[in-house]
Formats: sequence, C-alpha cells, structure tokens
Amino acid sequence: MYPKPIQNLISIFLRFPTVGRKTATRFAFHLLNSDPEEIDRLINELHTLKSSVHTCSFCYRSLEKEKDLCSVCEDKSREPILAVVERETDLISIEKTKEYKGYYFILGGNISPLKKDDLKKIRAKELKSRVENPKKYEMKKIKEVILATNPTTEGEATALFLERVLEGGSVKITKLAKGLPVGGELEYADEDTLSSALRGRK
Amino acid sequence: MYPKPIQNLISIFLRFPTVGRKTATRFAFHLLNSDPEEIDRLINELHTLKSSVHTCSFCYRSLEKEKDLCSVCEDKSREPILAVVERETDLISIEKTKEYKGYYFILGGNISPLKKDDLKKIRAKELKSRVENPKKYEMKKIKEVILATNPTTEGEATALFLERVLEGGSVKITKLAKGLPVGGELEYADEDTLSSALRGRK
Repeated sequence: MYPKPIQNLISIFLRFPTVGRKTATRFAFHLLNSDPEEIDRLINELHTLKSSVHTCSFCYRSLEKEKDLCSVCEDKSREPILAVVERETDLISIEKTKEYKGYYFILGGNISPLKKDDLKKIRAKELKSRVENPKKYEMKKIKEVILATNPTTEGEATALFLERVLEGGSVKITKLAKGLPVGGELEYADEDTLSSALRGRK
Repeated sequence: MYPKPIQNLISIFLRFPTVGRKTATRFAFHLLNSDPEEIDRLINELHTLKSSVHTCSFCYRSLEKEKDLCSVCEDKSREPILAVVERETDLISIEKTKEYKGYYFILGGNISPLKKDDLKKIRAKELKSRVENPKKYEMKKIKEVILATNPTTEGEATALFLERVLEGGSVKITKLAKGLPVGGELEYADEDTLSSALRGRK
C-alpha cells in the first residue's frame, strides 16, 4: 500500500513501546512531511546516542561523557542501601521522591516467568558481583537491597528470581510496599504513592 | 536529568503526533537499550526516506521509484471527481471503502482558523491549478471536487478556505456527509461510516 521505505519505517516504529500500526503510520508520515532538517537532526542524534552515551560502571545509568561513575554512585555520603530497578526511568522516579538516599542498580529489563531466555536479559550476575564484592567497585558495603521492580507479573517474577540469586549472603533483602497500584508501572506512579511505598518497605 | 543526547532525542520525539513527555522518554530509552543494529536500521531508513521517496506529480501521494504518477492518477478510467484530503493516510482510508472511483489531491495538512501562517502549509495554489488547468497535468476535466477534510475545527476551516479558493469556476463543490463522528479524525473512521459519508455527500 505504501512505498517500501515507509513500510520499513512503520515496522521499526511498531517495535517502539506502546505503538500500534495506526500510530506507527502517523509517525512515518510525520517524518515524511517534516523538513529535511528535522530528519537530519534525528539521524545526528541517533549517531550521537550510539557513540557518546556510556553507562555508569556501577549502576548502569546512562552518562554523556566518558565519566566512570554517575553523580549518585560518586556521592560517598549516601546510605549503604541498593535499590534495584528495571529501567533508568524508574531511578529518576525514585530520585524525585527525595525519600531515598541510597544507591541504585539498573537491571535493564525484567523476566517473564515463561521465557527462559529472559534470564540473560537482566543484569543478575552483575548485581550479585556488586553486592558480594563492593570493594571491587570502590563502593561501601551494601547492607540492604531493595528489589524495586514493577508490581507486575514480570516484575514480581524478576524480584523472586533475584531473591534466589542473592540468597545466602549477609545482605537484608526488602521489597517496596504494595502501596503501588497492582498491575501498574513504577514509572507512572505519583511521587506520594512512591514515597509511602518506600517508607513501608518490608 | 538525562544526558544531553537523550534529552535531544526526547525533544524530537515530543514533536511526533500524539506523543507526550513520558512516551518520548520511553522511546529514547527504547533506542538506547536496543541493539546497535536496530539504531542503524532506523538511520538507514531515514536516509532512504529522504533520498528515494518522491511524490506523485498530480496528487502528491508518496512514490518509491522516480515514477511521475501514482497508480490512481495513471488510471484513465476513473471518474472525473477529485477528493481533496489532508493526508495520505486519509487517501488510503477512502480507497479501502471501494466506494469511490475518482482521483485524489493531498493537501499536506490543514489550517487553523487562528493561524494565518498555516495558509502556506497546505497546497491550495497547487489544487486550484489542477482544477483549472487539468490539461497541463494530462488529466481529464474535473467535474466535482469533494472537500474530504477532517470533521474537526481545523478541517472545517480548511474546507471553508478552499471553497473560497475554488469559487467562480464551473466545478461542483461537495463535502462529505456528516455521518462522520464530529471531532474525530478521518484516518480512524471505520469503512462503513466512511462509505455512507461518501454516498450522502452534498
């Protein structure tokens, strides 16, 4: 129906989160009808994204320059607590509450209870190494790990899996209180709900 | 809050239709977390879009190769009616009804009743030229122009403006019947609603 380059663009946008066929088509035509400079800007930003965005060597948060640690991990005055989140956007949501003064670890996703391959999708080994060998990362000893995954089926499965990965160590493992609306996603929680979930963790 | 390249990407996605800040952020992180090959694919498709997509010299529909006319405009057996639509996706929606056997003209947008600059955003002059001088485009004489803009404030303002642009000629001007849900958009109409709107035009 549409020329091949437009169809290909639609297929790429279909893989974006929350995007269906109608929206993907609108996005493709939005670009087709926009100034060539807008397309160039997008191309340039994509190149920059590929080449200049690095991740924090401790928590995997994205960093612009070739710095080693992010501003949170650099801050030695924080409490020896580690909040394990699925994505960087969750970290930002928790920082915004100003309720939490510990460190973070970004898993990079979650695991589905049904898909074995998903186990490789999250940074479970990397988390275990950071909790067991904080000195290797010039980090203080972690006393508590908060499994702050989303209160969804996948998030709960991820937390359960991580509990098993971390068990046997001396670290205390907690989860966010179920003040969060079940079935929702952490990224969309308002700051009050997220604050009380932090306070009521068990 | 986020590194500069991610913030820039978010600003670009914010200009996509229907996209707010949360969604734009998710899109940026989707790309950040996807395979480098996926980003390369997107970059390649954007280059292809810029270089290889042309538009039909009569109706402005997108064409892959350097063909002059699209399959509809090439078809000399169609009726001498011209449906004026805002976007290419509207053309596709009308074709799908199989109710309409005329030609099309894509305006490339609509005009807001309040923004004078918008007048340059649509192809009003180009439309007038095609209706008044069909021979110049090797097209048969158009007997009727259907102003098939969206039944929104902007779409109605656009139709009103085009009526004035085309007035004085011998061509009959019609509009789609208001069987369309008012306030909605043509692209999302189901085929039956669109069919009856075509039949009941006045």
